[in-house]
Amino acid sequence: MKKANMPAQQKSLQIIPLGGLGEVGRNMMLLEYEDNVLIIDAGVGFPQEDMPGVDFIIPSIDYLKKGGKLQKKILGLVITHGHYDHIGAIPYLLGKIGNPHVFASPLTKAIILRRQEDFPNQPKLNISIVNPKDKIELGPFKLEFFAQVHNIPDTLGIFISTPVGNIVHTGDFKFDQNPIYSPPTDFASLEEMGKRNVSLLMSDSTGAEEFGHSFSEEVIMKNLEEIFKNAKGRIIAATFSSLINRVQQIIALSEKYGRKVAIDGYSMRTNVEISKKLGYIKSQKNTLIKPAQIADLPDQKVTFLGTGAQGEESAVLMRIVNREHRFIRIKKGDSIIFSSSVIPGNERTVQVLKDELYRQGAKVFHYKMMDIHAGGHAQRDELKRMIEIIRPKFFMPIHGQFSMLFNHAEVAESCGLPKENVIVAENGQIIILGQKSISLSKRTVESNLVMVDGLGVGDVGEVVLRDRQNLSKDGMFVVIVVVDRMTGKVRNSPDIISRGFVYLKESKELLYNTRKRVVGIVEKAAGSGGAVNWIYVKDEIRNKVGDFLYAKTERRPMILPVVIEV
Amino acid sequence: MKKANMPAQQKSLQIIPLGGLGEVGRNMMLLEYEDNVLIIDAGVGFPQEDMPGVDFIIPSIDYLKKGGKLQKKILGLVITHGHYDHIGAIPYLLGKIGNPHVFASPLTKAIILRRQEDFPNQPKLNISIVNPKDKIELGPFKLEFFAQVHNIPDTLGIFISTPVGNIVHTGDFKFDQNPIYSPPTDFASLEEMGKRNVSLLMSDSTGAEEFGHSFSEEVIMKNLEEIFKNAKGRIIAATFSSLINRVQQIIALSEKYGRKVAIDGYSMRTNVEISKKLGYIKSQKNTLIKPAQIADLPDQKVTFLGTGAQGEESAVLMRIVNREHRFIRIKKGDSIIFSSSVIPGNERTVQVLKDELYRQGAKVFHYKMMDIHAGGHAQRDELKRMIEIIRPKFFMPIHGQFSMLFNHAEVAESCGLPKENVIVAENGQIIILGQKSISLSKRTVESNLVMVDGLGVGDVGEVVLRDRQNLSKDGMFVVIVVVDRMTGKVRNSPDIISRGFVYLKESKELLYNTRKRVVGIVEKAAGSGGAVNWIYVKDEIRNKVGDFLYAKTERRPMILPVVIEV
Repeated sequence: MKKANMPAQQKSLQIIPLGGLGEVGRNMMLLEYEDNVLIIDAGVGFPQEDMPGVDFIIPSIDYLKKGGKLQKKILGLVITHGHYDHIGAIPYLLGKIGNPHVFASPLTKAIILRRQEDFPNQPKLNISIVNPKDKIELGPFKLEFFAQVHNIPDTLGIFISTPVGNIVHTGDFKFDQNPIYSPPTDFASLEEMGKRNVSLLMSDSTGAEEFGHSFSEEVIMKNLEEIFKNAKGRIIAATFSSLINRVQQIIALSEKYGRKVAIDGYSMRTNVEISKKLGYIKSQKNTLIKPAQIADLPDQKVTFLGTGAQGEESAVLMRIVNREHRFIRIKKGDSIIFSSSVIPGNERTVQVLKDELYRQGAKVFHYKMMDIHAGGHAQRDELKRMIEIIRPKFFMPIHGQFSMLFNHAEVAESCGLPKENVIVAENGQIIILGQKSISLSKRTVESNLVMVDGLGVGDVGEVVLRDRQNLSKDGMFVVIVVVDRMTGKVRNSPDIISRGFVYLKESKELLYNTRKRVVGIVEKAAGSGGAVNWIYVKDEIRNKVGDFLYAKTERRPMILPVVIEV
Repeated sequence: MKKANMPAQQKSLQIIPLGGLGEVGRNMMLLEYEDNVLIIDAGVGFPQEDMPGVDFIIPSIDYLKKGGKLQKKILGLVITHGHYDHIGAIPYLLGKIGNPHVFASPLTKAIILRRQEDFPNQPKLNISIVNPKDKIELGPFKLEFFAQVHNIPDTLGIFISTPVGNIVHTGDFKFDQNPIYSPPTDFASLEEMGKRNVSLLMSDSTGAEEFGHSFSEEVIMKNLEEIFKNAKGRIIAATFSSLINRVQQIIALSEKYGRKVAIDGYSMRTNVEISKKLGYIKSQKNTLIKPAQIADLPDQKVTFLGTGAQGEESAVLMRIVNREHRFIRIKKGDSIIFSSSVIPGNERTVQVLKDELYRQGAKVFHYKMMDIHAGGHAQRDELKRMIEIIRPKFFMPIHGQFSMLFNHAEVAESCGLPKENVIVAENGQIIILGQKSISLSKRTVESNLVMVDGLGVGDVGEVVLRDRQNLSKDGMFVVIVVVDRMTGKVRNSPDIISRGFVYLKESKELLYNTRKRVVGIVEKAAGSGGAVNWIYVKDEIRNKVGDFLYAKTERRPMILPVVIEV
């Protein structure tokens, strides 16, 4: 993991991660050779905990575009699969970098185009379909796609021939020899690539801190079937709408056990439609029904499938629990299946949701209680095997928090790769790949995260965030003083507007004393004759009122003094 | 779990949980017989996610005290062990309910008294020491204490003889036949109680969703020893300061491998001191050193022990990582041990901390990677065994989220207890225990959670919280208009103060258009002659400015209009 010497030859390839390295999500990577840039993925990420109000985060493209001008020749954007952390930033970024050609598998293309409909002002995308074994040439790069197993169909990995050597980019993957309704991992292709002298393997690290092997979907299917077999009432299943494979499993099991499936929630309905059209979800003619139709069926004939396993406020499951759903209430005998892992940060919300489901009489099946969810990412044994199959000269962990990258690097070293051939890089770093060397450049590129909040992209910065954090802790306290310009006296009593600090109606004495202090500060300054330094007066109010309120409450609301001269 | 029939006899015992049932933490329970009340535990809880700025939550005592007057005869407060979720509310509550006598084990007493020093205005506590096998009589209740194994020494369970039958309250416990430096679970006492015709068992549910058996501390010790054996540099261990047993393990291993132990952090130092004084932590004469002394020792002679495994902002580990610690920086070769579970809600903060430790060159050992932490709570197999040993007629799960109580009730039913003998109750419910029956009363008592924020206890309510949440999402927007009383014209331009919404300097056009709208609204209302309805004008500003800002930004800052007539 040390920096190697600079490459001897002049022309080298630069690999520049703009997102996804040092975090989970927001994946975007550049491969640059003589100012020609190939982009792999363009995803969104979840806002971090100190970003209240932010909808999501996207990568910065400052490196590609400066002062309104493209700095590089962009050869194309290649997408590995249709999850939002790989495609979600497309509507925000592509128009700004000259709308380059996109290459994606059929399902991925359909999901990208569907999402693009929500952004009517963006230019029309040019997307070509690529399938496993397809080859394309983009400038100095020759790309060959191969099938990977993940938890969405049509996932690709990429074999890239470059002037400095061959690169394998795994995309997201796990090894599964018994996935349901989709082909198993194509080990033959992987092994064939292993014989082609791979210089650099860039491999998915999301599962690198998990020991052993990920569950096969076959195991998940068996456990889900147990629930279906024993359920006497309705089954209500919640998962991510992007977990197409899980959705297919639930539909298939419903058919086997004589249940109709009501698909609810916009994203779930849309994804099922797209996947059905492309043949990735198969169902019998009358299986899928509308949520309104469940009323006409006996409980044991109903599966209700929606989003909300993360406790998202507006998702189907939360609306059901809050008794706000139009067609369904929880009742005794319902079996609830949470079939997706909990995103870190959502644990408490999910717990509250689970509690409420139990209270309302349902039986809850959660992935922590039994194996009814498998992640989509290879764990240590699989990661090791991938390295052993591909047998690269150099290795670089991608996709994951730093701790995952670090642990993945250790896996590579345990496979016999010399420490100096393993590079742990993060967003914004430049990895220089030569014919015989790999190294980290001392230069870095702009890789700030860009926040999307409502219609604003990038306009929420550190100052706004810090204010939001402070406001949320102890609220705010606006003091408005009207001063008579002639006499220097405060007119009436200062107005105080406060929210999130104390309950004002019960704090009359505190407010009275605060007002008295404010009047004192202002009249002392304004009554002294001569020009008044109002900036100083406002600082005085801010500091002295702040100290006073802290002494009385041990809280520090944001204090905003306003002085109006009349 | 159904409500049984009302008891036939007149006198019955009321069991009233005020906290800890339906949540993890904030434990407090009342046993009431003819207006005599025995209290078990008085703990704090962590604030929930929708309570920004709140320090912690405590139980409400409204049921015991109304209009400043005690409603019941309080016989005493019995404490099961020294964790804050069992003792933390004492300084807030005891003075208000007549400072009743407290009964606690030696270590628990010492921790309670130490904490009380932070509250100099509270009355002096009356605490009597109780030990396993001790018996006390409080009004109609005869109490016998028994030793339990938890992750703090001196943990007690309570056998309570009441006029309606015998009750066993487990406190928090796990079964461990090989704990380190403390006696194993006293199965003989448990079995003896099992022969004494126990009417009701109230048992800790925290681990009820975990299958199998909790790890023995012996296993943890072995795994920790592996780290000590292989560490070439310093060892930096972070855990809860209340996990006295783990602290002892780390000290003992340090001695075995020739390391001195620097104890850092106020709470850690205090707890080690108390425990050493009472003999619960043993160390050789020169083992414990001051943090400043580590500079004089070679790396492989140093163990640094502090708090911060939850990523708490001001704790030792975070200060080290942020390079704010006076005596220590992370360097290559350091081994970091996270030896405590992550409290739900802290996962992302801990991940950020872990990443940063790796970045700075440390090796991180986390409880998810290897078994270097054991919870203190019995899991399903142990819970089952407890029920089988005690053989109660009735069963009531205590301590835990509703989902845990529910699952624990299922465990009891799987042991053969009839459904109607198992009561799942939550905070504020009244469980009526008769000689031959148990039931839930239709009445409930006040059991709101009381928020502590700074010096304020209970003064942060729903309104303040909702404001904090809203402020954190999209910030606030104060509009101040000065209106000439005579002409109805707006003087100057309206002042706008906004924080957490947009970056004002880059939103000049937005502000200009907002001001124009505000002037229009005010002058239309004020210029029409006659009395002006300023409440209506303010509503207009709030609504129209709100809609305008939403249309432009899709954000909804809190809008606060101020109109000043001069």
